[in-house]
Amino acid sequence: MNVEVLNTGTELLLGNVINSHLAFLGQRLFPLGLRIARQTTIPDGPAIRQGLLEAFARCEVLLVTGGLGPTTDDITREIAAELLGAPLREDAGVLAAIEARLARRGVPFRERMRRQAMIPEGATVLPNDHGTAPGLYFPASQTPALSTPHLFFLPGPPRELRPMFDRYVVPLLEELAGMPADRVCRIYHVVGMGESTVEEVIGFELAQRGDIEVGYCARPNEVDLRLIGPKDILDAVDPRVREVLGNHLVSRDGRSLEEVVVAELRARGRRLAAAESCTGGLLAHRITNVPGASAVFPAGFVTYSNAAKTAALGVPADLIAAHGAVSEPVARAMAEGAAARGEADFGIGITGIAGPDGGTAEKPVGTVFIALAGPGGGTVCHREFFPTDRETFKQLTTQAALDLLRLRLLE
Amino acid sequence: MNVEVLNTGTELLLGNVINSHLAFLGQRLFPLGLRIARQTTIPDGPAIRQGLLEAFARCEVLLVTGGLGPTTDDITREIAAELLGAPLREDAGVLAAIEARLARRGVPFRERMRRQAMIPEGATVLPNDHGTAPGLYFPASQTPALSTPHLFFLPGPPRELRPMFDRYVVPLLEELAGMPADRVCRIYHVVGMGESTVEEVIGFELAQRGDIEVGYCARPNEVDLRLIGPKDILDAVDPRVREVLGNHLVSRDGRSLEEVVVAELRARGRRLAAAESCTGGLLAHRITNVPGASAVFPAGFVTYSNAAKTAALGVPADLIAAHGAVSEPVARAMAEGAAARGEADFGIGITGIAGPDGGTAEKPVGTVFIALAGPGGGTVCHREFFPTDRETFKQLTTQAALDLLRLRLLE
Repeated sequence: MNVEVLNTGTELLLGNVINSHLAFLGQRLFPLGLRIARQTTIPDGPAIRQGLLEAFARCEVLLVTGGLGPTTDDITREIAAELLGAPLREDAGVLAAIEARLARRGVPFRERMRRQAMIPEGATVLPNDHGTAPGLYFPASQTPALSTPHLFFLPGPPRELRPMFDRYVVPLLEELAGMPADRVCRIYHVVGMGESTVEEVIGFELAQRGDIEVGYCARPNEVDLRLIGPKDILDAVDPRVREVLGNHLVSRDGRSLEEVVVAELRARGRRLAAAESCTGGLLAHRITNVPGASAVFPAGFVTYSNAAKTAALGVPADLIAAHGAVSEPVARAMAEGAAARGEADFGIGITGIAGPDGGTAEKPVGTVFIALAGPGGGTVCHREFFPTDRETFKQLTTQAALDLLRLRLLE
Repeated sequence: MNVEVLNTGTELLLGNVINSHLAFLGQRLFPLGLRIARQTTIPDGPAIRQGLLEAFARCEVLLVTGGLGPTTDDITREIAAELLGAPLREDAGVLAAIEARLARRGVPFRERMRRQAMIPEGATVLPNDHGTAPGLYFPASQTPALSTPHLFFLPGPPRELRPMFDRYVVPLLEELAGMPADRVCRIYHVVGMGESTVEEVIGFELAQRGDIEVGYCARPNEVDLRLIGPKDILDAVDPRVREVLGNHLVSRDGRSLEEVVVAELRARGRRLAAAESCTGGLLAHRITNVPGASAVFPAGFVTYSNAAKTAALGVPADLIAAHGAVSEPVARAMAEGAAARGEADFGIGITGIAGPDGGTAEKPVGTVFIALAGPGGGTVCHREFFPTDRETFKQLTTQAALDLLRLRLLE
């Protein structure tokens, strides 16, 4: 079945709001064996009419978001009623639900809210458990004048659309789609191997089989290898994929590098402390984005100044004077100081030059030393070079540091 | 001019990745007097051909993203060359730039990457300063066979697309759009005042004049008030706008809250240290995203554990035992400890419950204490409540902390 999404909303095209509906709907449709063939964003207003007519001609299921609210720019309901030749009638049940909802929240009923209870003839109401505007479902119809796909009109706010979709739309789509196809999507999250390399070592081989769809999505120092196909086929190739990706494979279940690191630390009952200079707290930020990180991350130190490196981490001042703050000995001392001061098993020390200023001929902007101290001694230090903008530098450096720890934990 | 955006990428339709390009492009086009009339997402592969042809017939400027990379699912370049009848030729300059980039980063050249140096005849190369695949620009052309809009092909990764767009595409669009030279866009960056309030106190008044276009862009605890109009008119209303916004106005020149804070610290020769618990380093990360932050930010402490609060910041253990780690006395002690240990003039202390776990009846998830210690003594502490997801909580909390310091610096 050919599925399309039509998002209405001037705010999306102006860039005031990021469209999060598409990703949500795509994720929900896949397990039903459905995929979105095309998505379109149009502004509020009369363009909705043209957008609907074009989509009618192309697809079998159309999901429309936005324009169902109480204000004057919400005209999706009226345009749909007009195009489908379905007169609008006030629905007593919907009106009562709106009034009850407002009463519960102590909000006065305003006359313009009554519009949201106007239901086109032939439409099934999709109740809104988290707002006032109900959704609408029109089954596909073929008339001499107009053929229409299965039509779902959904509210714009994500906190209203999402539960409505899960509770009321998914069961209807399950019925329309028939039994979910035995197709699964598996994402191999890879770090430390470029997109071209992933394709070379495994992608071509899989794509040539003809029974697996292969895709890639690259971000700074990470690549998602996406395989879509029958479950038994993906299961059959899985050992080979894992073997080839080796320890570059971070997860197969959507978990990020920091989620895996936190989970591995938890599983081993180990704790990490971090000492950051040029990454300025991003490493701590990434780790603490993971719920439950507090159990494994007692402390982070952002030591920009030399004095702070000495005071907070115990890096000897003469070591800094002898080698410079951006040096392997200082990175090592930072890692060891972080572990000791943070009362942690592992310590990460990062010192480098994020730029745009501060580079030298010997240590140009982008140079960074990443050290890892562990419970068994044997602190290691890698010199890396990420000549890029400041924020990407921070991202790449923390990525390398997290992966260094991940690999150590897997040893 | 009618502008459309065509995003290619199966990952967008599957919901693996959220489309952030549309919002970026919408925001960048607006000050040029351009708006996106329609945006379409299509999967990688042959659908790109149909998507391009349909858009050709509708618009005068078409921005296409994705599909320029080295892997086999990247076929936008080839489809464009075929549709436009523009043979692909290897561009020695582009190839040299790719090789130089890889050499700088110590990445081996792979034969697949050569595809990215294939440039269709008649295309202007848009250099990629942050990746290997260059962008392409084709001026509009009318031929008997095919009329095409001004065509921009841009890479999929945001960190490559964004700087390319700002540096190479904006100047071309400025010329094409030919916005009257006296027409300017002024953005008032407001913190601590909601979108509806901004509209109420000044927005309606400005919109009623008829000679200024008023827009809003809201993010967590910040709003951009966007005015577009003739320069002399915007200059004339400026004093009134500034008066009404008062000290909620953070900048009029696009600077972020953290950029303003770092600049104000530098201007006063003051230094800041931060002690973070529940924000886990995000405050340090935001401050250190500002080039030159090292001059004013000697040290940050991420003290998740009670032991770390005591060891790194000198928060008395019995204070924590008496009031709990999430409490006003502990936040104050963290702020004062950060300033003392970090050898800074100002200290920020943050302790709270980001969730999803850890809340109590008295201190539910979302509770946070933000303290500011300053050179003149008189540490202040605000209790806030941000019951939301973990990442938004961290954003809102650091926003409140930075604004607390900004207001103190302006006193």
